[in-house]
Amino acid sequence: MSDDSAAPPSLDGLNLNDAVVEAKFSQRVLIQSILGRFDKGAGLAGQKVRIGGWVKTGREADKGKMAFLEVNDGSCPGNLQVIVYAEIQKLSDVVSTGTCVHVSGLLKEPPQGVRQRIELHVEEVIYVGKVDAAKYPLPKTKLTLENLRDIVHLRPRTNTISAIARIRNALAYATHTFFQQHGFLYVHTPIITTSDCEGAGEMFQVTTILNDAEKLEKELKEHPAPSEADISAAELAIKEKGDAIAHLKSAKASKSEITAAVAELTKAKENLSKLQERLKLAERSRLTAGIPKKDGKIDYTEDFFARQAFLTVSGQLQVETYACALSSVYTFGPTFRAEHSHTSRHLAEFWMVEPEIAFADINDDMNCAEAYVRFLCKWLLDHCLDDMEFIAKFIDKTSIQRLQMVASTQFHRITYTEAVAILEEASKVKKFENKVEWGVDLASEHERFLTEEKFKSPVIVYNYPKAIKAFYMKVNEDNKTVAAMDVLVPKVGELIGGSQREENYEVIKDRILEMGLPLEPYEWYLDLRRYGTVKHSGFGLGFERMILFATGIDNIRDVIPFPRYPGRADL
Amino acid sequence: MSDDSAAPPSLDGLNLNDAVVEAKFSQRVLIQSILGRFDKGAGLAGQKVRIGGWVKTGREADKGKMAFLEVNDGSCPGNLQVIVYAEIQKLSDVVSTGTCVHVSGLLKEPPQGVRQRIELHVEEVIYVGKVDAAKYPLPKTKLTLENLRDIVHLRPRTNTISAIARIRNALAYATHTFFQQHGFLYVHTPIITTSDCEGAGEMFQVTTILNDAEKLEKELKEHPAPSEADISAAELAIKEKGDAIAHLKSAKASKSEITAAVAELTKAKENLSKLQERLKLAERSRLTAGIPKKDGKIDYTEDFFARQAFLTVSGQLQVETYACALSSVYTFGPTFRAEHSHTSRHLAEFWMVEPEIAFADINDDMNCAEAYVRFLCKWLLDHCLDDMEFIAKFIDKTSIQRLQMVASTQFHRITYTEAVAILEEASKVKKFENKVEWGVDLASEHERFLTEEKFKSPVIVYNYPKAIKAFYMKVNEDNKTVAAMDVLVPKVGELIGGSQREENYEVIKDRILEMGLPLEPYEWYLDLRRYGTVKHSGFGLGFERMILFATGIDNIRDVIPFPRYPGRADL
Repeated sequence: MSDDSAAPPSLDGLNLNDAVVEAKFSQRVLIQSILGRFDKGAGLAGQKVRIGGWVKTGREADKGKMAFLEVNDGSCPGNLQVIVYAEIQKLSDVVSTGTCVHVSGLLKEPPQGVRQRIELHVEEVIYVGKVDAAKYPLPKTKLTLENLRDIVHLRPRTNTISAIARIRNALAYATHTFFQQHGFLYVHTPIITTSDCEGAGEMFQVTTILNDAEKLEKELKEHPAPSEADISAAELAIKEKGDAIAHLKSAKASKSEITAAVAELTKAKENLSKLQERLKLAERSRLTAGIPKKDGKIDYTEDFFARQAFLTVSGQLQVETYACALSSVYTFGPTFRAEHSHTSRHLAEFWMVEPEIAFADINDDMNCAEAYVRFLCKWLLDHCLDDMEFIAKFIDKTSIQRLQMVASTQFHRITYTEAVAILEEASKVKKFENKVEWGVDLASEHERFLTEEKFKSPVIVYNYPKAIKAFYMKVNEDNKTVAAMDVLVPKVGELIGGSQREENYEVIKDRILEMGLPLEPYEWYLDLRRYGTVKHSGFGLGFERMILFATGIDNIRDVIPFPRYPGRADL
Repeated sequence: MSDDSAAPPSLDGLNLNDAVVEAKFSQRVLIQSILGRFDKGAGLAGQKVRIGGWVKTGREADKGKMAFLEVNDGSCPGNLQVIVYAEIQKLSDVVSTGTCVHVSGLLKEPPQGVRQRIELHVEEVIYVGKVDAAKYPLPKTKLTLENLRDIVHLRPRTNTISAIARIRNALAYATHTFFQQHGFLYVHTPIITTSDCEGAGEMFQVTTILNDAEKLEKELKEHPAPSEADISAAELAIKEKGDAIAHLKSAKASKSEITAAVAELTKAKENLSKLQERLKLAERSRLTAGIPKKDGKIDYTEDFFARQAFLTVSGQLQVETYACALSSVYTFGPTFRAEHSHTSRHLAEFWMVEPEIAFADINDDMNCAEAYVRFLCKWLLDHCLDDMEFIAKFIDKTSIQRLQMVASTQFHRITYTEAVAILEEASKVKKFENKVEWGVDLASEHERFLTEEKFKSPVIVYNYPKAIKAFYMKVNEDNKTVAAMDVLVPKVGELIGGSQREENYEVIKDRILEMGLPLEPYEWYLDLRRYGTVKHSGFGLGFERMILFATGIDNIRDVIPFPRYPGRADL
């Protein structure tokens, strides 16, 4: 065991050019570049290699002469079998689950009949990061995903969470690649926003007011506010300085004497006003816990942005400003809802992909959504098959089939009116908990029925009743429906929601007023319709929903690295 | 002018397979797919095409028989020359700057001697989004970048802001591509955090407490708190119900009668406790503006996450948990500072790229940082040359040279101690505002001197004094310096800051205590050193700084779509 950080490692002899993943900028090759090859690494036998990773399972063998370690470095679901001999390493230090090993050695073909196609015989141990097996919070026996939520900082070391992390990574890069290939520009919409434009849900407030209030309180404890006596003394001082000036004047004192006295008076006045200011702060601290208030309301002009600010619930409205200038754009960023929902489908912080396309109507929008989702599914099959095989084996048997089905099947497209008719027909034989009725939004059970039972494929429902949709959606010619669409997929239900946006200034203005919203906060949004307005459309995909769909994981808290929900925000 | 949203457009005859950008999911091809070709579109003459965009400049010609429009759709800096005849379109409706035109027509070679290689002769006008030239906030005459900050929703329609948007997009995709190619996994670290681990700066608070307080206040206005009389009446009711039970018991009433009376007493008690609860809320509203307080401090157990929560200042500590499991990882997300700085280099919301590499030391870290920055520069030259040419022409003459220099030059690497010696030597002839002294951090002017004057190339300074750096940085063997490094580049100064992380449990624990920090909030971070610890390193690149470097733009507020700074958060 050494801590050599000087010389670069020798990786000579290991030709990784044909490997999936290349490891640079570190003193090891990724295990994926050995096991991820078409021949599972068999062709690399005889080569010298340096790897690093964490022991999944270790056992001593041959009467303590050697140890077999299954080592994983998170680059792929597979473990590399590593064989260490007692001559070069105290075996009891490396066999515990969770031990970090950084070793170099020779790749050899294992004896016939074993599962793996290649194994590493250690020649040098560079570093060992030990584990006290009795204290390690991740025992060999499997913890439930729910238990793992209590150790978010260690759970990426488990097979399931690391597979999800790799799938999440693949879907993120696939997202960028899809949109870039189609000429979309990635736009960073703001996280902190002063618009509550969608009414999409409860918003978190972003503020420095509470912090300022606590600072004030602390400061007042250290330096208490002036007392009545302090104020009186300061007032008296002013009176005295004033009297002194009067006295000097009547005594026809020199100009410089009078100037000096006036300066003293000014100073005394400043002192009083400082004391009064402090008294006011102390009063605020006492009366309103230090929160600045005006006319009975919190005075946000004293907040960081000089107004109330929130965490965004969607980048759509803002990204429209870029679509109406750069044509095809998309956002991919975090969004927030301060809702007290404890379901397995909701997070307070989640990621959304929101493309927005100029010169595009609802049909283009549906085409884009379908192509994007099918691209994601195909990407996982092409780039993450080993992880998907792990998922299919341990989490959801049907997951790979589901991806294949979606990648190769055209989505069914039905209008909302058709969907209601189908559901009404179905409700004659099937019991729904929620009533189906034209004009009411579809419930999750209805969506699941359409995609999972009726069509057994993804379904796009479009042209929803105007009254249940947002103001910015394009009103259709029937004046009853809007050009909105939802993409429904098996296992998850709604994966995507989108619409053509109303581009007509008069119509959208009336819609805002119709919904009882004020115009002023939307003036900038209306400007897009005032000046060179353009037909445009877009949608939002809940990124975590896509991962749920791909993996069959039940709870959304397990598909984001650091889940945030009511009462919980670890790390 | 029509609003046809039914039939898909005919794009037949335009073969875009060899174009840089392909336009799908919309009723037009991107102008980039015409002008972005090697022959600037000349080879497409004779083809029919449908485009959409906004008029940059328009003028009627030939006595009102035709108009020449320079049309831009944001997909590239170039404008397509579009010729419209009066027979098919009222010309005065399309010549104003900012007008949206959606047209199809024939691509033709223009007459000899003009700048452009191709022009579009309109055969059909699909849609016109008109502009009242007198009211349009973006006149033909150039507004300053500072003026444009007042119209963030329209400024992407300007040449400069749209060029920056495309460069920003290119750098973002280049970032993902670089790390993906090198086996890094993209990890979404949390935006809302309960750790203030770095002490990197003032944090924004994320809360629902103020909103709840205001709701309470509003609700109390509508339904005032109980009066003294209400409380007395409720207390009296309890007494009466109690008396009634006693009376029934002494009168040996039936069990059911007594049970009923007891139920009434219970109800009366519940009523009183409800009233008292409301009185307490009203008291809180009156005394502390509705803010829950306990022991004189704000009681965050009533906040959304049941504790104080903030916007992240860096994803580093959290992403380390993934590096210590998945080996090579990176984050790319928004970060926040609630600092009242009004400089041209600081934003309250900005984006950071933070890779973290297991089994890597400070040298690997520097190798990675250098390779990444050089990759970004080369990417811009390869993928964004038309935008860079625009930048070089109108913003910063040296910008392309700077990219070429960085892409092709090895970075100088000097220790902090060497840097101080160089600066001390230089200060004999050059006047610095800040004193150079071992143990004091380099000032911006020193950094700029090293990269711009001394080496005229990027410089990496490493091994900084321990005392001026964060607790998590690896202490070197000299016990005076830590393995930290900064990448300095011309024009911007510090572009990257990084370090090897201290992986030794005892050392890092002592460092935390030495800095006067409490251990408890870092227990999870210490766990990474307790269980299978690993040598690891990482860095952070300020994404907007990289754009400043690439473009030579002076103010950071102009290189992010929606800038946030003290007093300002538009949209």
